[in-house]
Amino acid sequence: MTSCIFCEIIAGRADSTRVLEDETCLAFMDIRPINAGHVLVVPKTHAKDLSDLPAENGGRMFQMAQMIANALMKSEVRCEGVNLMLAHGKAAGQEVFHAHLHVIPRYRGDNLKIRFNLLKLRPTRAELDRIAAQIRHGL
Amino acid sequence: MTSCIFCEIIAGRADSTRVLEDETCLAFMDIRPINAGHVLVVPKTHAKDLSDLPAENGGRMFQMAQMIANALMKSEVRCEGVNLMLAHGKAAGQEVFHAHLHVIPRYRGDNLKIRFNLLKLRPTRAELDRIAAQIRHGL
Repeated sequence: MTSCIFCEIIAGRADSTRVLEDETCLAFMDIRPINAGHVLVVPKTHAKDLSDLPAENGGRMFQMAQMIANALMKSEVRCEGVNLMLAHGKAAGQEVFHAHLHVIPRYRGDNLKIRFNLLKLRPTRAELDRIAAQIRHGL
Repeated sequence: MTSCIFCEIIAGRADSTRVLEDETCLAFMDIRPINAGHVLVVPKTHAKDLSDLPAENGGRMFQMAQMIANALMKSEVRCEGVNLMLAHGKAAGQEVFHAHLHVIPRYRGDNLKIRFNLLKLRPTRAELDRIAAQIRHGL
């Protein structure tokens, strides 16, 4: 046993409903779905978050999420749109520290509300340029 | 001129603050940031959404978003965590119909609230199995 529930699921030691897998990634049903049909895609090799995830595995994780999203749209599951979401770090809402990409079916009047821009930020071009330089400094 | 603002930005015919680019993707500052440092990553070849995005380009878009996320965490930008978000379709909140992945710096008490699970869905394993079969049918 490891202390990581997603590693336990990947190893088959914890229950899950698998949707799709390949050598790199596994997609399985979220047991606390925001909407019915909510799927999680995880890299099979443990990585706690984006800082720890090899780029190759990140790309594969996204590609599997994209396949699931397109499958949801074609399926009988109620799905008029899809959100892909990933939380990196507690401040972003991450709860399980094994990187995972949410694939969430959406429809009008559903269970997900994303509220933002309470401050109506409208930075000037000079402000954007300054922040971009700060980000590039971290690259 | 095309009718797609992101294609205009990619072509350099519309103003933007670029952060990073390669042959496949471009990262630039969102002019209506949820939090300061909010970046969009887009494929350079037009794709309206996930149904239209070659897997190769999707993987590269995610990899660039991951690089930006890690750079944000190391930068002077206020950033204690990061959300990656993509909206596929109007029902998911998509507003610009050129696929784009949001890279959003997060910190405690910031401008983004994600509310969900109003219905506290707790499906049985049998229900999850049934829905997974429906999704696989769409693959």
